[in-house]
Amino acid sequence: MGTAARVRMTPDERRRQLVGVGLRMFVERPVGDLSVDEVAAAAGVSRGLLFHYFPTKSDYHRAVVAAAGRRVRRNVAPDEGVHGEEAVRQVVGRFLDQVERRREWYVALVRGRTELSRAAPDDPMETVTTFVADLARRELDLPAAAAPAARGWVAYLEDRALQWSALPPAERAEGRDALVEHCVAALRALVTLTPDAPATP
Amino acid sequence: MGTAARVRMTPDERRRQLVGVGLRMFVERPVGDLSVDEVAAAAGVSRGLLFHYFPTKSDYHRAVVAAAGRRVRRNVAPDEGVHGEEAVRQVVGRFLDQVERRREWYVALVRGRTELSRAAPDDPMETVTTFVADLARRELDLPAAAAPAARGWVAYLEDRALQWSALPPAERAEGRDALVEHCVAALRALVTLTPDAPATP
Repeated sequence: MGTAARVRMTPDERRRQLVGVGLRMFVERPVGDLSVDEVAAAAGVSRGLLFHYFPTKSDYHRAVVAAAGRRVRRNVAPDEGVHGEEAVRQVVGRFLDQVERRREWYVALVRGRTELSRAAPDDPMETVTTFVADLARRELDLPAAAAPAARGWVAYLEDRALQWSALPPAERAEGRDALVEHCVAALRALVTLTPDAPATP
Repeated sequence: MGTAARVRMTPDERRRQLVGVGLRMFVERPVGDLSVDEVAAAAGVSRGLLFHYFPTKSDYHRAVVAAAGRRVRRNVAPDEGVHGEEAVRQVVGRFLDQVERRREWYVALVRGRTELSRAAPDDPMETVTTFVADLARRELDLPAAAAPAARGWVAYLEDRALQWSALPPAERAEGRDALVEHCVAALRALVTLTPDAPATP
């Protein structure tokens, strides 16, 4: 892509392009190790243009991890029209697949709450946890009292996904479907235990 | 404490003193925001002496988070002579109390896998997870196949501790014992679900 084509990007396109560069670069190198000049060079823009869109490196990093959170939410969402336990099963399977497909990326940008993202309102793991827990509660028609267990279950699911995705490929393939069923059953079990939900509807 | 007393510290004492300073300072400010000079000043030592013990700021930070992990393991360990489910119950209660008592500290130094600690062999959350999961398996006499569920349960326990410790004090006090029982029962439930442990002994 030549300079002329780059110049013709709309502000939104440019912003997306710059965030896309970060979604790749921050996997290889932590944010503290990258200079603004390196990011600008990788994006093929001037340092000044990068600062025009993101006044500080922290602003830029926050935009990148927020985008990582959005990407995970989009990737794990169930198909339209799928509901109930089957929707939860889809989300669990897609969550496992997301972590498996891009484990380093996931650890670096979503799980790895860095010093910059930890306090941000769009902390990626926070938005992913809320998305998955709310969906599970809605699809299984769980009472409000089950909310803490549903959120805790997302932490369980994430941990199982990270353990599973570190297995050798053959073991991974063999265990996937059973792990999906295990995680769906785990949700049912956790929200049924007192004190959160003495009785499920 | 005067200069003479400081000079008389053994290398081990000095190292512990410097790590102790980090255990306090890194809670207030992320490692990237602190200069080596600030750490040295807070410890009342020269920059050169700090570098003598910790050649880089990363080395220093790693020593601090490793110490945080050791402290949590010591604080959550059950009493000597207590075994079985009662030992698990003690660990769960002490884990909740640890997070409640020093929530910011825990989030900053143990949970918050920073860019520096993430890849370290003594990543504090990793050592805490292994400690608690192994103890639970040993005390409940769980089969090896239950190991992934036991580790995942620690992630669940941690998430519940973080949610609970953010509640208003009155709610927290009222809910503590029920939450301990819930988490013990959650472990039993998770390790019993297929595919990890088709049958518990």
